[in-house]
Amino acid sequence: MNKVYTAEILGVGTELLLGNIVNTDARDISVMLSELGINVYWHSVVGDNPERLTESVEIAKKRADIIITTGGLGPTCDDLTKVVLARAFGLGLEFNEEAAERMRQHFAVLNKPMTENNLQQAYLPEGCTVFQNLWGTAPGCAFRAEGCIVLMLPGPPRECNAMFRHCAMPYLRSLSDETIVSHNIRIFGMGESSVEFKLRDMMNEMSNPTLAPYAKEGECMLRVTAKAHNEAEAERMMEPVIEKVRGVLGSVIYGIDSESLEETVFGLMRDRGVTLAVAESCTGGFMAKRITDMAGASKVFLGGATVYSDASKASLLGIDRALIAEKGAVSEEVAREMATKVREKLGADIGIGITGVAGPDTDGRHEVGEVYIALADKDGVYCRLFTLGKTRERVRLAAANNAFDLIRRRLTGLPMDN
Amino acid sequence: MNKVYTAEILGVGTELLLGNIVNTDARDISVMLSELGINVYWHSVVGDNPERLTESVEIAKKRADIIITTGGLGPTCDDLTKVVLARAFGLGLEFNEEAAERMRQHFAVLNKPMTENNLQQAYLPEGCTVFQNLWGTAPGCAFRAEGCIVLMLPGPPRECNAMFRHCAMPYLRSLSDETIVSHNIRIFGMGESSVEFKLRDMMNEMSNPTLAPYAKEGECMLRVTAKAHNEAEAERMMEPVIEKVRGVLGSVIYGIDSESLEETVFGLMRDRGVTLAVAESCTGGFMAKRITDMAGASKVFLGGATVYSDASKASLLGIDRALIAEKGAVSEEVAREMATKVREKLGADIGIGITGVAGPDTDGRHEVGEVYIALADKDGVYCRLFTLGKTRERVRLAAANNAFDLIRRRLTGLPMDN
Repeated sequence: MNKVYTAEILGVGTELLLGNIVNTDARDISVMLSELGINVYWHSVVGDNPERLTESVEIAKKRADIIITTGGLGPTCDDLTKVVLARAFGLGLEFNEEAAERMRQHFAVLNKPMTENNLQQAYLPEGCTVFQNLWGTAPGCAFRAEGCIVLMLPGPPRECNAMFRHCAMPYLRSLSDETIVSHNIRIFGMGESSVEFKLRDMMNEMSNPTLAPYAKEGECMLRVTAKAHNEAEAERMMEPVIEKVRGVLGSVIYGIDSESLEETVFGLMRDRGVTLAVAESCTGGFMAKRITDMAGASKVFLGGATVYSDASKASLLGIDRALIAEKGAVSEEVAREMATKVREKLGADIGIGITGVAGPDTDGRHEVGEVYIALADKDGVYCRLFTLGKTRERVRLAAANNAFDLIRRRLTGLPMDN
Repeated sequence: MNKVYTAEILGVGTELLLGNIVNTDARDISVMLSELGINVYWHSVVGDNPERLTESVEIAKKRADIIITTGGLGPTCDDLTKVVLARAFGLGLEFNEEAAERMRQHFAVLNKPMTENNLQQAYLPEGCTVFQNLWGTAPGCAFRAEGCIVLMLPGPPRECNAMFRHCAMPYLRSLSDETIVSHNIRIFGMGESSVEFKLRDMMNEMSNPTLAPYAKEGECMLRVTAKAHNEAEAERMMEPVIEKVRGVLGSVIYGIDSESLEETVFGLMRDRGVTLAVAESCTGGFMAKRITDMAGASKVFLGGATVYSDASKASLLGIDRALIAEKGAVSEEVAREMATKVREKLGADIGIGITGVAGPDTDGRHEVGEVYIALADKDGVYCRLFTLGKTRERVRLAAANNAFDLIRRRLTGLPMDN
């Protein structure tokens, strides 16, 4: 793959056009194609209609080197992607016995009868490379015809995503004698424009590896991508780049290829055998929810108190009501007490306290977005006032993010003041 | 609008093609267009590239009656949607003083200087209807040319969504001497296929109003849509349909036009002056998080305990450790105690206790997906064992949903066993 290919992702499904679901397949495949260095120039969506699907394929054939379809591979009469695509490229369909056998086994394991229409899914364009579906029933496939590379994947996001990564990416890589490898440098506490400003000269000078910034919700990310003859060579090429970025950005980098800030923090705590308890006011359980989204959370997370009222701060955590009356529920003193008491109550190594104004109403003393976050551990209590934005959603997200980041800083010996 | 129009939604932005963001604008607009009875036949996305955008507009002109663009209306040189669209339809751009003045005021309120490039946003296609942006800076617009109706909206989802609802929908309605009004019947506790089965004959017989089912995450929805000469007439036509659906489906309908189950429950509690406290184990704060997502949550939600460990069940809520040892943390007895104790501790009218196995690991006694949910109030404690699915994400979502639904049933005097 020494030429730079252009790709179109063509979603097939009336449910997308009705707005029943959002097209996450196009997003996920775009991210994976960018890892391969393939340019995505078009996303398109059509319904389960053979004429309009045929027209869309004709348009895609003219403008893209690679056409990737998602959806319409299932067993019902609405599922017409394979039929239409095969016809558009003058190919017949042939029965794939392995795919059929996998379907029979799939239903046997579920102990459900398989209706005959399921076998429709085993008919695939003649001569294609079959992508067996280990995550569902409908197989995908790839073929080359009329100067195009065509890939078809099932629509359900979990199947589409897994099959693209495990089947389509190796297929696309095999078309090339070069390997493309990339790493994601995850950053919290510095905006995209600052990251770009600090690294602009470096980015502009580079061609292989490349370095590109991506905005993420409440944080940002840099992707390093290298092309080489093999993976080891690509890794060797990226190593000095990652080191240089670390040198420039320092402690705002929370992980390389980490899924999220909470995943990094969870890993740090698990590896060090550190336990956590959280007392949340304005975040209202959001931090606890994010930790417990992860399988195995109970290894580090002991529990939390969502103390949304003054009374609950007293009754659940034993915070002095007089202190709350004197200093206010949103105050450094109360944040410190929340972190200290929840740590003591649950016998955790680290206690977090979060109290602030998520809005739209204020407490009359603070602006919307002012949030105190405290971290208590065996050495004492750290607390800081953050100013985090103007909308409820944004304030709650940023407050939880900053609390996770404080834990990361404490556990890795970084300065607490970013 | 007596003919049925077809629409194409054209997203403009390289960030969509890179997979940095998912195209929620197309989803949101599709939902709103279906409320208007307009058929969406195509979604497409192109990057910030004038040639490819021009080509996409030419394709859309040929096949759609209505073209709706999202994105590319901002102040930077990447923002070229207006220039390209105006050129494609042979129109010039003209300066809109009201839009410029609104921008100046927007920056004045923020107390930030306005750079000159912002005024670019005030140039709009000649003769267009301007959609002033009350949610950001870039105005949108609509015009008719060459047999097409063209609408342009800004890309940020909050702005796009609000402007479509408040500016574009009235514009599209004004093209017609008919009014289309719809209501969403929200359903929890009955799957889409059962709903469809029970209502199939009724749905097939109807043409105006229409009744259509939509799958939602963990629940389902029916939309009733009527076309009439005015809104009052449309409402009169829908009334007997909604009544009939109520008669067939009964208590699984939790709201008409409610945003979510938690919104319905929050409204019921607020109106009745009822307060809530929650004790969560496997949902890990997810229920608390969903209530506190809503502004004004503190009127009903006093707080919660996320008791993820046995020790925290004892230390935060005072549950007898011997009971946990004897019955197991996942048991009816512990769920009942959680609901009772959290209600007492926080002085709430209703206490909820949730304990179960979200997976992937089990406690050795229960399958993944088995969850006990208890509701305590002045009359005693109700508790039931639910079986909720196989994946962690699904189990946690369904557990929180069912807990909200139990509160709804209790407050409205419905049977607790669905």
